[in-house]
Amino acid sequence: MTPYKMSPVMGQMMSQPLLISSIIDFAARHYPHSEIVSRRTEGDLHRYTYRDCQMRAKKIANALAGLGVTMGDRVATVAWNGYRHMELYYAVSGSGAVLHTINPRLHPEQLAYIIGHAEDKVLFCDLTFLPLLEAVAAQCKTVKAFVLMADRDRMPAATTIPNLLCYEDLVDHNSDDYAWPLFDENSAASLCYTSGTTGNPKGALYSHRSTVLHAYGSAMPNALNVSAADTVLPVVPMFHVNAWGLPYSVLLSGAKMVYPGAALDGKSLYDLFEAEGVTFSAGVPTVWLGLINYVLQNELKFSTFRRTVVGGSACPPSMMDTLIDKLDVQVIHAWGMTEMSPLGTTGGLQNKHLALPKEEQRAILRKQGHAVYGVDMKIVDDDGKELPWDGSTYGHLLVKGPWIISSYFKNEGGDVLQDGWFPTGDVATIDADGYMQITDRSKDVIKSGGEWIGTIDLENIAMAHPAVAQAACIGIAHPKWDERPLLLVIKRPGMDVTRAELLQFFEGKIAKFWMPDDVAFVEALPMGATGKIQKNKLRDLYKEHKLPTA
Amino acid sequence: MTPYKMSPVMGQMMSQPLLISSIIDFAARHYPHSEIVSRRTEGDLHRYTYRDCQMRAKKIANALAGLGVTMGDRVATVAWNGYRHMELYYAVSGSGAVLHTINPRLHPEQLAYIIGHAEDKVLFCDLTFLPLLEAVAAQCKTVKAFVLMADRDRMPAATTIPNLLCYEDLVDHNSDDYAWPLFDENSAASLCYTSGTTGNPKGALYSHRSTVLHAYGSAMPNALNVSAADTVLPVVPMFHVNAWGLPYSVLLSGAKMVYPGAALDGKSLYDLFEAEGVTFSAGVPTVWLGLINYVLQNELKFSTFRRTVVGGSACPPSMMDTLIDKLDVQVIHAWGMTEMSPLGTTGGLQNKHLALPKEEQRAILRKQGHAVYGVDMKIVDDDGKELPWDGSTYGHLLVKGPWIISSYFKNEGGDVLQDGWFPTGDVATIDADGYMQITDRSKDVIKSGGEWIGTIDLENIAMAHPAVAQAACIGIAHPKWDERPLLLVIKRPGMDVTRAELLQFFEGKIAKFWMPDDVAFVEALPMGATGKIQKNKLRDLYKEHKLPTA
Repeated sequence: MTPYKMSPVMGQMMSQPLLISSIIDFAARHYPHSEIVSRRTEGDLHRYTYRDCQMRAKKIANALAGLGVTMGDRVATVAWNGYRHMELYYAVSGSGAVLHTINPRLHPEQLAYIIGHAEDKVLFCDLTFLPLLEAVAAQCKTVKAFVLMADRDRMPAATTIPNLLCYEDLVDHNSDDYAWPLFDENSAASLCYTSGTTGNPKGALYSHRSTVLHAYGSAMPNALNVSAADTVLPVVPMFHVNAWGLPYSVLLSGAKMVYPGAALDGKSLYDLFEAEGVTFSAGVPTVWLGLINYVLQNELKFSTFRRTVVGGSACPPSMMDTLIDKLDVQVIHAWGMTEMSPLGTTGGLQNKHLALPKEEQRAILRKQGHAVYGVDMKIVDDDGKELPWDGSTYGHLLVKGPWIISSYFKNEGGDVLQDGWFPTGDVATIDADGYMQITDRSKDVIKSGGEWIGTIDLENIAMAHPAVAQAACIGIAHPKWDERPLLLVIKRPGMDVTRAELLQFFEGKIAKFWMPDDVAFVEALPMGATGKIQKNKLRDLYKEHKLPTA
Repeated sequence: MTPYKMSPVMGQMMSQPLLISSIIDFAARHYPHSEIVSRRTEGDLHRYTYRDCQMRAKKIANALAGLGVTMGDRVATVAWNGYRHMELYYAVSGSGAVLHTINPRLHPEQLAYIIGHAEDKVLFCDLTFLPLLEAVAAQCKTVKAFVLMADRDRMPAATTIPNLLCYEDLVDHNSDDYAWPLFDENSAASLCYTSGTTGNPKGALYSHRSTVLHAYGSAMPNALNVSAADTVLPVVPMFHVNAWGLPYSVLLSGAKMVYPGAALDGKSLYDLFEAEGVTFSAGVPTVWLGLINYVLQNELKFSTFRRTVVGGSACPPSMMDTLIDKLDVQVIHAWGMTEMSPLGTTGGLQNKHLALPKEEQRAILRKQGHAVYGVDMKIVDDDGKELPWDGSTYGHLLVKGPWIISSYFKNEGGDVLQDGWFPTGDVATIDADGYMQITDRSKDVIKSGGEWIGTIDLENIAMAHPAVAQAACIGIAHPKWDERPLLLVIKRPGMDVTRAELLQFFEGKIAKFWMPDDVAFVEALPMGATGKIQKNKLRDLYKEHKLPTA
């Protein structure tokens, strides 16, 4: 960290580094009986308290020391959302090592690449992923110990992994007598690789300071708004940007935590929401789709579920309407990135909006919203010139703040900042009241005759058509306009719509030059490891597509 | 700040100091049109936006430089809650100088002492306090410039203060072209003296880091819960521990701010609450007493006011009941100290309490509540041994955290910490769920035959009697028991109660040995500058009092 000029008069306040261990210590001391409930890969529901979590995390910290893990060493996890994964969040970072959470949906080669790049020394793995682990273990030269996160009686009789350890043995054989070390708050705490669509994955290396500040910022009422009165179920995975920081922000708030494990289908989630009284959840749109369909098809209601954060990709307006109007669930639209810990903005109303008609409020809630205090943002043109906040001017979105990366781990990709700002790769508008709205990815935006066409707007309109289940829009090379939009559509089962009907549906909703030049009906769309449509693959698939206008 | 060990692997996050200037810049950029409404000493209502506030604060920052104020210099204010005072909060601290807020209710000699001790270089003063300023100006040898916070046409024709400047001249004659300097976040930002009941006042010297962390912590849902949907009226004065941090936490939340100026009577407050749609407020119990009486006597209702923080002294249970049950205002019981920035704990329910009957919930809400994440606390006996969290064991309350002082300004009072913990001077219980309840001040607790008697409990019971307006309990020397309780009572106008009736009212509500030995009916109780009963004065007044049991 750059040293800054000191004042001749320094404050006389206690000196205390912002460390992740302070969260589990606070939680266990001040909310000792708050519950953590987990659906385990073993099949059952496990429940214990914050204090139990702290005790077991300390045992694992001792176990890590026994395995030779020292400060700065990377320790990997390939695991679902559950109590053991949470213990590792605190045991690894709290002891000064670096928690490296791995997305199990990556291809085995990518997985092996990431483990090698991170030089992971110990790897913890859920039962589900044992076959995956067996497939890559031989390539993981840096890993000195593999640990299966399972009960003793679930350990495999035979495995190709040499000397596979049992997590519960580590717990049983170690003492909970462990004092978290104090160290500089800018020390590395955790590592998360972006599933970049091009090139090798790159790692965001968070510090203790950035994680604690993000926990404060993301817990605030304008952001995720987590309080002791909540029961929180993070659907967003702990292997994906630390489950948007919830394993930290929930514990410092004293809320009840519910982890769904591997069971993320509509019925499993609904049953767990009801059984545990979940009030608040967080996840990507595709997960909500499954849950919403299950609830509506079975004519169910949520008894306690009242608020959800939707992020990862834009929440389709129709999904937002269903959640709010049919299911009485408030939607907090959020935007962020792996490189941002991840929270950047959250939607919500200001005091002056409270008296507005519902439809005008809804239009505000559809935007990705305000920067969380700590994050600054701006929109710029291709030359880096700042653009006005008028709600209609499109620009590349740049951000800065104490929980945003300054460079990637091992400086992959070199200098990434532009004059101190991180380029998000998103295209957005910002209105006069500070509400940001993502209109596209910089690489997905369609450049037609010098003007920009936002593909997300086109997709949202298409998805508002009753016969459309999913839609994606890409730019296709055009001899006159450089690029023109092609709309790819999955129809709802048993429903039909023609190309002409769908295009007519756009009339009056968009500027004329935004009208897609063509529609293709498809059976499926390629999805990435984090549940987003892979538009680079689509562009590849359709690069020979002949537009009727060309 | 002590340097801590660095990890061999440091995080790769942006380096950005936590500075108070980042709050006004964030507020003006992301919530430019959020309003700040102020009742001025000139008599009228003034309204402008966050962006206007930033612009004027920058002009004042340039003015301060013109007056020769440099980094670390102290700049004093003697002022009500209003927009100019807020501009100074940001102009002074933002430019690297130290904002010294002075309580105008202090005696002139104390005021002069504090100004001299702080070595204030410039002093800003509201119109109301011009006579006070004239009385002490000659003794303020360090002050190079006095500024009256008033319009040009309100400047006095004649004054004994040499070369009195006009605030609006400073605004008019300076440019808003000013970039806040970047400096070490542990630099001093503001200074607030405690109105100690013994000895000279001592200063708490906050840093930028402590102030920003406190702003995050205090804004959280478990704490003050400030969001962009709120309209906030801080009754707690900006000269008293920075109005509990609201000038910071409100701005970073984008809420509408309403400042009441000098008009703190029930009618003025009620009218302003209604006119401006205040949703949330904060103040000491005595202020709420005036407001509640006005509202009830005139059979009024609050249209928008739904939440208030009550702190400074314990909220009498009867007041809490009235606010919740009769006025539909949720009460957040808070506890803190000048030495703690000030927020330590806030009351509230946990998820598991939501199904409890109202009376059990109320009993929980009466406690001062949970530590805000960042603050740790413990209770100890006279020997410093930690006591159990069982809800009944009394102990001295000690705290630590990044927004708690490590020593007083200029090290007045020497080493104040006990093994790294700050002794609050309060006596408290903490229950198994982490709820803290203040039972007394360490110096007020009555030590009777080796047992402790909490005076606050006795006062609360007395005040629940319909004929009692106010009550105070003190220990009187007793030949057998060392000390025994004497209850001092102010009766409600037109109501009567006898000594015997009042003592009978205690039967069954307390342990037998807690029963006051005597009751004295009085016309008034001595109040300190921050609205608390001065028990040291009471003990002095009644030191010759003969208990009937002695």
